[in-house]
Amino acid sequence: MTSSMPPLRVGLAGVGVVGQGLVRFLEASPDFAPAGRSVVITGVSGRRRDLKRDVDLAPYAWFDDAVTLAKSPDIDVLVEVIGGAEGVARHAVEAAITANKPVVTANKALLAVHGRTLAEMAEARGVALLFEAAVMGGTPAVKMLREGLVGDDVTQVAGILNGTCNFILSEMERSGKSFADVLADAQARGFAEADPTTDIGGFDAGHKIALLGALAFGCAPHFAGVEVQGIEQVELIDIRLAHDLGYRIKLIAEARRDGASATVRVGPALVPLDHPLAQAGGALNAVFIEGARIGRIFLQGPGAGAGPTAAAVAADLADLLTGARRPVFQRQARTLQPLSADRAATRNTAAYLRMRVQDRPGVIAAVTDALARADVSIDSFLQRSAQNSGLVPIVLTTHVASEHAIAHAVDEIAALDAVVERPRFIRIAKI
Amino acid sequence: MTSSMPPLRVGLAGVGVVGQGLVRFLEASPDFAPAGRSVVITGVSGRRRDLKRDVDLAPYAWFDDAVTLAKSPDIDVLVEVIGGAEGVARHAVEAAITANKPVVTANKALLAVHGRTLAEMAEARGVALLFEAAVMGGTPAVKMLREGLVGDDVTQVAGILNGTCNFILSEMERSGKSFADVLADAQARGFAEADPTTDIGGFDAGHKIALLGALAFGCAPHFAGVEVQGIEQVELIDIRLAHDLGYRIKLIAEARRDGASATVRVGPALVPLDHPLAQAGGALNAVFIEGARIGRIFLQGPGAGAGPTAAAVAADLADLLTGARRPVFQRQARTLQPLSADRAATRNTAAYLRMRVQDRPGVIAAVTDALARADVSIDSFLQRSAQNSGLVPIVLTTHVASEHAIAHAVDEIAALDAVVERPRFIRIAKI
Repeated sequence: MTSSMPPLRVGLAGVGVVGQGLVRFLEASPDFAPAGRSVVITGVSGRRRDLKRDVDLAPYAWFDDAVTLAKSPDIDVLVEVIGGAEGVARHAVEAAITANKPVVTANKALLAVHGRTLAEMAEARGVALLFEAAVMGGTPAVKMLREGLVGDDVTQVAGILNGTCNFILSEMERSGKSFADVLADAQARGFAEADPTTDIGGFDAGHKIALLGALAFGCAPHFAGVEVQGIEQVELIDIRLAHDLGYRIKLIAEARRDGASATVRVGPALVPLDHPLAQAGGALNAVFIEGARIGRIFLQGPGAGAGPTAAAVAADLADLLTGARRPVFQRQARTLQPLSADRAATRNTAAYLRMRVQDRPGVIAAVTDALARADVSIDSFLQRSAQNSGLVPIVLTTHVASEHAIAHAVDEIAALDAVVERPRFIRIAKI
Repeated sequence: MTSSMPPLRVGLAGVGVVGQGLVRFLEASPDFAPAGRSVVITGVSGRRRDLKRDVDLAPYAWFDDAVTLAKSPDIDVLVEVIGGAEGVARHAVEAAITANKPVVTANKALLAVHGRTLAEMAEARGVALLFEAAVMGGTPAVKMLREGLVGDDVTQVAGILNGTCNFILSEMERSGKSFADVLADAQARGFAEADPTTDIGGFDAGHKIALLGALAFGCAPHFAGVEVQGIEQVELIDIRLAHDLGYRIKLIAEARRDGASATVRVGPALVPLDHPLAQAGGALNAVFIEGARIGRIFLQGPGAGAGPTAAAVAADLADLLTGARRPVFQRQARTLQPLSADRAATRNTAAYLRMRVQDRPGVIAAVTDALARADVSIDSFLQRSAQNSGLVPIVLTTHVASEHAIAHAVDEIAALDAVVERPRFIRIAKI
């Protein structure tokens, strides 16, 4: 805690939006850390040195290769903001740990896939591997679960973890534009990536909930065990009909523990309009955390952006300086097991179903009969006029029933001659 | 990080609701801490050994005096859950620190008043002084501000920090009962203390916002500088009229920084019905934290109770085991200054004013004229029928104006012959 110590020397791997945010922050506030030791960047690496950037990188040693940066004797800690579960990000993180250097990373994909192995490497060498910026950048969800709630048995973490999807869904509702139009617009404005698959496919939220679930339950992160569904198939009509029924469609990431098994998944779900998650619009992130002793905690804040994410990286750098020694996840990595996935057949949910059927006698009866045979009871039913189209739009919600049974009924309905497309089945969230 | 280390031995000073909650937790989960060292209670102290309690204290060495417990060679850390800014709690904490033992406390009053001095003592000896349980017990607001947001300049913390007041206000609205009736009911059910002054007078929330403000702004906590107003004077009619106008009355604690000065205060305020703080009912606590880089974070959860508070103490005990060395507040205590209070004259607010006036010509004109002369413009105005009482109830809201000017206008209105009681003036919160 003396300011006479030499500064902590950061090697920054990745100088995109977040990396540049960190450069700006540390140039302005090298003495931000409470522990009283300065933090300075000494080396940076990126794919292209000559790229035009908003910050001047001339003061820093340039490395074409992040692995060489990670091994450099002139850095004490590697900050990895390259991204990606494989390739250079992974190699650089491994190289830093192998060289006994702590790592601060924003890389959710890397940790969701290789977190246990990397944690074991880091713990064996006694170096920290911190990742606050990987989830809800700027909103300290990782610290909250890893440290703040260790005195509780957390049973559930559920919420909105991908700002791009939340923005697109909010914007579809606000503007009345289609998914494709809003996505194109978001891409033009820089709110969505040129290749948006990671976000809109639900994979980014999947990486994040794998990490939060691991922290919450004291398990190994296990992205391969996360069921992922994106928002590509959410249509404007579903957003509108859901609204008429008193719901909003959100991309919900959830990890729920039930004894030794758990459900960890991402997918669109209906949330009641007056629910806090329904009210988290735009690019906000928000989660509910539920525990046996604490009850429910709600945390909402920014989930991305240069400023918030750089602030999260900075918080981890400050944490490093405290000398805290703790496992990377909740427990020592060598003891971590992935949770076994529960069986979908045992899950219950309420559901929203939308379909178009031919306007002729007996069709409605056939639809409702398929549900009844699957023991799925209808909570609300809305049939619109065919308006001479010959096709009747139907939307209905069910009471809580077996998810398996609902899916089976949907199969049966889809097979009816009079049903012109597979019914849209969206879960109604229980959060 | 090896489990072969001897257990951390806790001396528990105070075996009321929270203390007993910790006994239960550590008996069930001595190995909860991720760092891999057990935590066990070895000694306890309380005012009366023979009191009937829900937990059996026989296994633990009993101390009649918390100071003797603090000094005992058989404890490694003191957990202080006695409470109170002075007396035995203070002496025990000082004794533990003097004996180079870390302290975990839930005592908001002690730290809000003597935090800087105690922090300086602890830092000089290199021992931790942790207080997660002091604010929003169970919801890790302290860790969030002290560690999670050090990469930002926090400019505002505002919200609901006293569960008893929130419960009483919610219950008045729900039941239509008076403040006195609801308080008596809450006392009978154990939701409010026999002497409720600390809670309903706003002092408890004042202690808590002094701590959150200190953590947020990197200043010394300074309870004497907190402006405190309680809920004793909130009447049912105000709750109802506020509701008609689209607001809910909450006890709001807020710390706002403006350069080197700050407003830190507690008082009733109107919050729009659709605001998340208006929707935090019952005994919930909730805060907004605003920062230059992160934007806004919202955190909501339990603020009291044996389970949540014991979970917060446990989180601090786990933190101790990481060996983290950091200042007690945001900066080293010897460098901490209290923020200078801003001048009330420079503050602006919108306001709710309620009064009863005699039913005769010219009175309304005199009231509105007093506001106009103070440069306070009216946003909404509701005059009810006198219903043969001879007294006209008036409620109005103002646009944002100088708080000083509004108070001045209230003085002038109160002095009018036709105004039968001092108008009720409640701020409309800007959060």
